[in-house]
Amino acid sequence: MLRRHRIATMALAIGLSALPALAATDRPAPTPSAQQLLLKSRASEWRRPDPDNLLVMQLRTGRVLIELAADFAPLHAANIRTLAREHYFDGLAIVRVQDNFVTQWGDPASDDGGDPGKLRPLGKASRTLPPEYTRPFDPKLPWTALPDGDPYAPEVGFSEGFPVARNPASGQEWLVHCYGMVGAGRDIAPDSGNGSELSAVIGQAPRRLDRNLAVIGRVIEGMPLLSGLPRGPGPMGFYADPAQRITIESVRLASALPATRRPAVEVLRTDSATFAALIEAQRNRHDAFYAVPAGRTDLCSIDVPTREVPADGRSP
Amino acid sequence: MLRRHRIATMALAIGLSALPALAATDRPAPTPSAQQLLLKSRASEWRRPDPDNLLVMQLRTGRVLIELAADFAPLHAANIRTLAREHYFDGLAIVRVQDNFVTQWGDPASDDGGDPGKLRPLGKASRTLPPEYTRPFDPKLPWTALPDGDPYAPEVGFSEGFPVARNPASGQEWLVHCYGMVGAGRDIAPDSGNGSELSAVIGQAPRRLDRNLAVIGRVIEGMPLLSGLPRGPGPMGFYADPAQRITIESVRLASALPATRRPAVEVLRTDSATFAALIEAQRNRHDAFYAVPAGRTDLCSIDVPTREVPADGRSP
Repeated sequence: MLRRHRIATMALAIGLSALPALAATDRPAPTPSAQQLLLKSRASEWRRPDPDNLLVMQLRTGRVLIELAADFAPLHAANIRTLAREHYFDGLAIVRVQDNFVTQWGDPASDDGGDPGKLRPLGKASRTLPPEYTRPFDPKLPWTALPDGDPYAPEVGFSEGFPVARNPASGQEWLVHCYGMVGAGRDIAPDSGNGSELSAVIGQAPRRLDRNLAVIGRVIEGMPLLSGLPRGPGPMGFYADPAQRITIESVRLASALPATRRPAVEVLRTDSATFAALIEAQRNRHDAFYAVPAGRTDLCSIDVPTREVPADGRSP
Repeated sequence: MLRRHRIATMALAIGLSALPALAATDRPAPTPSAQQLLLKSRASEWRRPDPDNLLVMQLRTGRVLIELAADFAPLHAANIRTLAREHYFDGLAIVRVQDNFVTQWGDPASDDGGDPGKLRPLGKASRTLPPEYTRPFDPKLPWTALPDGDPYAPEVGFSEGFPVARNPASGQEWLVHCYGMVGAGRDIAPDSGNGSELSAVIGQAPRRLDRNLAVIGRVIEGMPLLSGLPRGPGPMGFYADPAQRITIESVRLASALPATRRPAVEVLRTDSATFAALIEAQRNRHDAFYAVPAGRTDLCSIDVPTREVPADGRSP
């Protein structure tokens, strides 16, 4: 929303550079920017995703990294690992981009007339899976609560890097369909999903899907490659013309790649002090540009940062 | 999230066709789909936007329609009308697409070194405007309240087709930065916006901007032309390479177009019975696919429908 020709003020407003506190006498120092907070983070606040939970999806335009939420959807994670090991996704495609909803990929033969005989075989992967829409609350998992309420759930926060809602009354918790979260497509039957068709949220969080679909992970790098695509013309956003589909060159588990080709990325721990500071900065942002801090945040407006690790393996 | 090769079940789940109620004995009839509800709407529940409040932005790829929120940002609306009448925007460009945030358009000279002398003159339009971030609550404006709470504001709902928050304690109300809402760019000074640079929300609602920026209207048609663009490479999403910019062919008020070229669109009244039914269907969606209705909604998950009117002027 800022104009760019005021470079100095822009840097002040969005905090791209470390700036001294304003000398104003009657207002607090500006809220630190995300970048400022991350620069002060400690190495121990970052984690390398387990390479068995890290999917590397290669498109012609670049790399999409998806971290599997193995503690929330363990059976789906295991099935997707099997599919990746079988190179199931190689040569399949992004088949649907529905504005303000999802980008979906899988077997294009699903769209071409419905002949099950034309579908790519799932190999050793299961054709059906228990739903895994919710899971019993596990007090051993880390929990970073958000304090501002949520229209949909009694409690929301972060656990193991993922946005989570939970209901103490039912004893259940579940992954939330925030921007960048990945869900497993299914037919009507709750057990008809198997992870062979996936979709990432590219718009306002479609919370009505919570507890109705298995969320299997989160895109931790490469969202623009999924979100910045032409929308499909129909009401559900399918690419009516097969030529519009975007081919998936390959999907591999990071653990199946040679060490030199494994993504060197770290994710900020959501139970770290720096993540807590990021939440507070988002809630109470006040600086030269933001005169009125919201004082609040919603779950899906909090981004969990990822960073590249230099090739020498040391943190930046 | 649904696979497409089950066409029959897909139609059932998303309600693309009118289907008889399920014969199940122990569950209620499926929630009607948006399309089903809209087919039953009455002509009087739709309105033609005032042609003096309807901007027609022509891109090579198609037409984007923006309805100005003249009751919420009257000075910005008037200034934008002046700019459109002067053909100010013709030949300017989309200069920024930041993932999960905004698509922004305006004078590319703002990005090219900051020489104010190179900026296109604003003509008779004002260079500065009062902020218009909030307005005093007006009980004469229609109000459709949402019942499920909001993390950011005491009350949220719809007024005159726009998502609105309000605070009875302060007596203020304001437009909310939902998907598709359009804001006026500014520098640091609150009065430095003038409507010559605009941006539309293309991701999770950035509610931290509420009350910090003048929201001037809503994209009522053509969002995919703004959201389905490659993201700019930098942290703020500016197109570093000028060749990436997307030229704006023209921006006109509908009132300035010959009658035959005026957009024939209608917007569902947000104080209509059909809109209330859409909200309820969104809150309590239950059908073969949605086994667990959310029972709730958030403001920015409610879409205000637009439809084309046939050339003969009669409603479809």
